[in-house]
Amino acid sequence: MASPGIITFTTDFGASDSFVGQMKGAALSIDPDLRLIDLCHEIPAQNVAAGAYVLETGYGAFPRGTVHVAVVDPGVGTSRRAVAVAAGGHVFVAPDNGLLGRVLGRERPECAVELEPAGPGGAATFEGRDRFTPAAARIASGTPVESMGPLARDLVVLPVAARPEPDRFASIPVIHVDRFGNAVLDLRAEWIGAGSGTDDAPAIVVRTPGGEIDRLHRTYGEAEGDSPFLVVNSAGYVEIAVNGRDAADRLGLRPGDTLDVRLGS
Amino acid sequence: MASPGIITFTTDFGASDSFVGQMKGAALSIDPDLRLIDLCHEIPAQNVAAGAYVLETGYGAFPRGTVHVAVVDPGVGTSRRAVAVAAGGHVFVAPDNGLLGRVLGRERPECAVELEPAGPGGAATFEGRDRFTPAAARIASGTPVESMGPLARDLVVLPVAARPEPDRFASIPVIHVDRFGNAVLDLRAEWIGAGSGTDDAPAIVVRTPGGEIDRLHRTYGEAEGDSPFLVVNSAGYVEIAVNGRDAADRLGLRPGDTLDVRLGS
Amino acid sequence: MASPGIITFTTDFGASDSFVGQMKGAALSIDPDLRLIDLCHEIPAQNVAAGAYVLETGYGAFPRGTVHVAVVDPGVGTSRRAVAVAAGGHVFVAPDNGLLGRVLGRERPECAVELEPAGPGGAATFEGRDRFTPAAARIASGTPVESMGPLARDLVVLPVAARPEPDRFASIPVIHVDRFGNAVLDLRAEWIGAGSGTDDAPAIVVRTPGGEIDRLHRTYGEAEGDSPFLVVNSAGYVEIAVNGRDAADRLGLRPGDTLDVRLGS
Repeated sequence: MASPGIITFTTDFGASDSFVGQMKGAALSIDPDLRLIDLCHEIPAQNVAAGAYVLETGYGAFPRGTVHVAVVDPGVGTSRRAVAVAAGGHVFVAPDNGLLGRVLGRERPECAVELEPAGPGGAATFEGRDRFTPAAARIASGTPVESMGPLARDLVVLPVAARPEPDRFASIPVIHVDRFGNAVLDLRAEWIGAGSGTDDAPAIVVRTPGGEIDRLHRTYGEAEGDSPFLVVNSAGYVEIAVNGRDAADRLGLRPGDTLDVRLGS
Repeated sequence: MASPGIITFTTDFGASDSFVGQMKGAALSIDPDLRLIDLCHEIPAQNVAAGAYVLETGYGAFPRGTVHVAVVDPGVGTSRRAVAVAAGGHVFVAPDNGLLGRVLGRERPECAVELEPAGPGGAATFEGRDRFTPAAARIASGTPVESMGPLARDLVVLPVAARPEPDRFASIPVIHVDRFGNAVLDLRAEWIGAGSGTDDAPAIVVRTPGGEIDRLHRTYGEAEGDSPFLVVNSAGYVEIAVNGRDAADRLGLRPGDTLDVRLGS
Repeated sequence: MASPGIITFTTDFGASDSFVGQMKGAALSIDPDLRLIDLCHEIPAQNVAAGAYVLETGYGAFPRGTVHVAVVDPGVGTSRRAVAVAAGGHVFVAPDNGLLGRVLGRERPECAVELEPAGPGGAATFEGRDRFTPAAARIASGTPVESMGPLARDLVVLPVAARPEPDRFASIPVIHVDRFGNAVLDLRAEWIGAGSGTDDAPAIVVRTPGGEIDRLHRTYGEAEGDSPFLVVNSAGYVEIAVNGRDAADRLGLRPGDTLDVRLGS
């Protein structure tokens, strides 16, 4: 897999410090020709599950061979492993704490290695700059993943919701609320017999604090009025939306909540 | 017009999701040598008028031939048109919903075309990634605008405030409040007989909830004390400011409010 | 010093306007091959001291010869000087208002010049775009600093805390609170006889509203429970942290507060 020389960054570092900028400086210090792209830096602080969703749903838009650095790392500097993983035609560099867990729930790793510790001048409190990014920059510059360290086995995989049995209510978590207030369910669009529902037996029913929702629209703007409805988002997950409004706020939904969902047969 | 290979991005996508990153991934997937610059992603959700102001006042700093993608798009996936427009030496790619309305109020379009729908794998809910950005990337890579689709006529133009008649109060909207609390009026600096006012007949008078303002300063730091004053901002609009303070907060001004303004003769 | 063609940007411009994007447009208008990296744009509005800390602790991650533009500038357009300064192997372009004061407290300037005013089309209210960035772009493209204007002497240097005398309490300011709520003290790690403390005479004692803290950990994750502790941050400063919590919020600490600190002998 030839590298296109692109690194993306996903962190919980926010924008009020220079942490993200310093990671980019570390990358350019290794190879000034790398392309450096922000995927997201507003992962809620130390929320590994939220980072896992953003990473899973974001990396696919990039060219094959892109290196994705992700740092949401409550255990920075401790004994949790730091890994580089080739999977799905991309490379991921991250702590092995579940942050890659959703990607790895979908893509079998082709190669996974444990990264060396940061050098003697490195800070134990900022491995994003001193360990993860330098490794990513070397890989994006052409160093093969397998030469970056000893093989790593048994990576942490997050439990991704399985396809619920048809015609029975199952408990499905809200995995993300986006900027517009759309509440994403851990439910793949391909699990719905889309278009197969009827008024008597809709293809999907979601129970929310504001009532049952079974209307599935193709786009936000198609929905009339301000009733909540379902839509397949751009990452292939089912989400709850209200046209022009913040659905999560309206229904009191937050990431981590669970809702009863029934799929048609 | 040769392309310098630069794309800017203006959206209401915020920073808490990976949407902006995914658009950049889509651009690099078409041409990995493109330069990708954020213009603004904190347009208030679905506020087309706010996006129109940011776009109008931001694009001019870029080299001629830059392609500006703008997505504030309540009607994503519906029948509103998606267009590419060459105007003022730049190219704009956006929904035809008024987002280009202020640019087009100033610059006559040289060429406007309607973009093809997103391909079969595209998401109806994320045309920013699957329709607008791919078109922008092709244009920034050298594809002529006129070859991108059928000619589009009758683009949506926003009503830009006209020059008020002298010596009479006219109602002028606050079109933007910037990070520092400066409240921008839809009033061009060149309409003021700058320097021509006197204490008896000032060049401009603005009635606010905190009283009339007729003092015009060249810079923020020139103003003494904490009285509100007027200043010409870096985009050529008149704004209300308080030295070292948040003028909008102090005077209770928000975008969309209107104020009575009188210009001297 | 050859230039790697990199510019970083540090401002208090936030993300809700197009100001930062416009600065990048101005840079690309001079040299479309420059690499443009955000260091931080969420410096609290007009807080020069906060900007000085972010700049001091951020620039070192970049390759030698990088040009760092910094604009936190309550006096924009007034008579305060605009300068370009070569120091520590990097170049800094900023108002001479203390923003470079912490960098210059550590690095003796090799060369400092006063920048020319913005050209006739420039805006007095936006020298970031019309004066600082164009100068930075010329320097990053290879123009020597010393040719950019007349020599500037007596640059503003911020008072950096001196090493406190051992075994006596000294008043030390909180200079920054990061995204995770870690409260950074203006206290260099090398001043602590790290590892030399004992239970009877700890290497460092910090008095806070929540009690005395004398426990020094190597990483955040090493600390057990939710008691505040000290850690050396990635910039070499001592900070107050709570594992998995917001220490500043918990202890009621804000930038500018001072705490009594005693170092061991």
